[in-house]
Amino acid sequence: MKTVERAIQDEYADDYAWCYGCGRLNETGLHLRTGWDGDRTLTIYEPREEHKAIPGFIYGGLIASVIDCHGTGSAALALHRKNGHEPGDGVEPPRFVTASLHVDFLKPTPADTPLYAIGHIEEVHPKRWKVSSEVFAGDVCCAKGEVVAVVMPKTFTDK
Amino acid sequence: MKTVERAIQDEYADDYAWCYGCGRLNETGLHLRTGWDGDRTLTIYEPREEHKAIPGFIYGGLIASVIDCHGTGSAALALHRKNGHEPGDGVEPPRFVTASLHVDFLKPTPADTPLYAIGHIEEVHPKRWKVSSEVFAGDVCCAKGEVVAVVMPKTFTDK
Repeated sequence: MKTVERAIQDEYADDYAWCYGCGRLNETGLHLRTGWDGDRTLTIYEPREEHKAIPGFIYGGLIASVIDCHGTGSAALALHRKNGHEPGDGVEPPRFVTASLHVDFLKPTPADTPLYAIGHIEEVHPKRWKVSSEVFAGDVCCAKGEVVAVVMPKTFTDK
Repeated sequence: MKTVERAIQDEYADDYAWCYGCGRLNETGLHLRTGWDGDRTLTIYEPREEHKAIPGFIYGGLIASVIDCHGTGSAALALHRKNGHEPGDGVEPPRFVTASLHVDFLKPTPADTPLYAIGHIEEVHPKRWKVSSEVFAGDVCCAKGEVVAVVMPKTFTDK
């Protein structure tokens, strides 16, 4: 069974580690964690009982959340590697935000098994990366996603 | 200030009212509610404190969840109206599932204000409806979304 040992989200600076989806400091959040699996990226998430659509199946917003944070995490992994770094080497990684998110729901996603999001990354521009993902429940690909992620601008928090 | 008085989710049969995003019977869920506002549809949601991306701003997965459930709810409203019914008339509405979801994140979404998703609906096929949405925080459109929703097949729960 696969695991994510070194996740990019473990390395985010504290100020950027609050995301409900993937922030390690968000007490009630999902704590999504994304690491390398060969040249692909991997996020594993075991849905909570309440994350249902109808009993036995997962609601779409959770799958979208997994694809979203998996996408920004994957882009951060890729740019970090391009810069010569890997999670765990003590260098703070870049932080991405989502420009666009697309999800195709292929099959109802069963609630009784962990989800595996597997990402393929493409550099569109040094600050803009595309992450194509497949979300598996067991052996079944239940959703496909695409995230365009951009390096978080310094102006992100300027209202 | 706008409100949603009669929501389609209030009328779903109990078996279909468990969605974490919009199910009235899901104790810990978001309880998204979607109603008519003229010929547009409206979902209002006030994010919880934990729904942040970084402090002061909302995480993308929540916005995707709002657009998703707003989309299926809007499609259900539209087909129900086409069939001669309105929420509150005692007739069980159709229940939709999401085929695809797209979100363009236009601006960081502030955390200190309710979100208003406004939907425009187009019938693509009697069982397939497209819902284009804008999500506002105050006067600012922070995200645009598109959901293609299909009537929940009777086989939805056949694994």
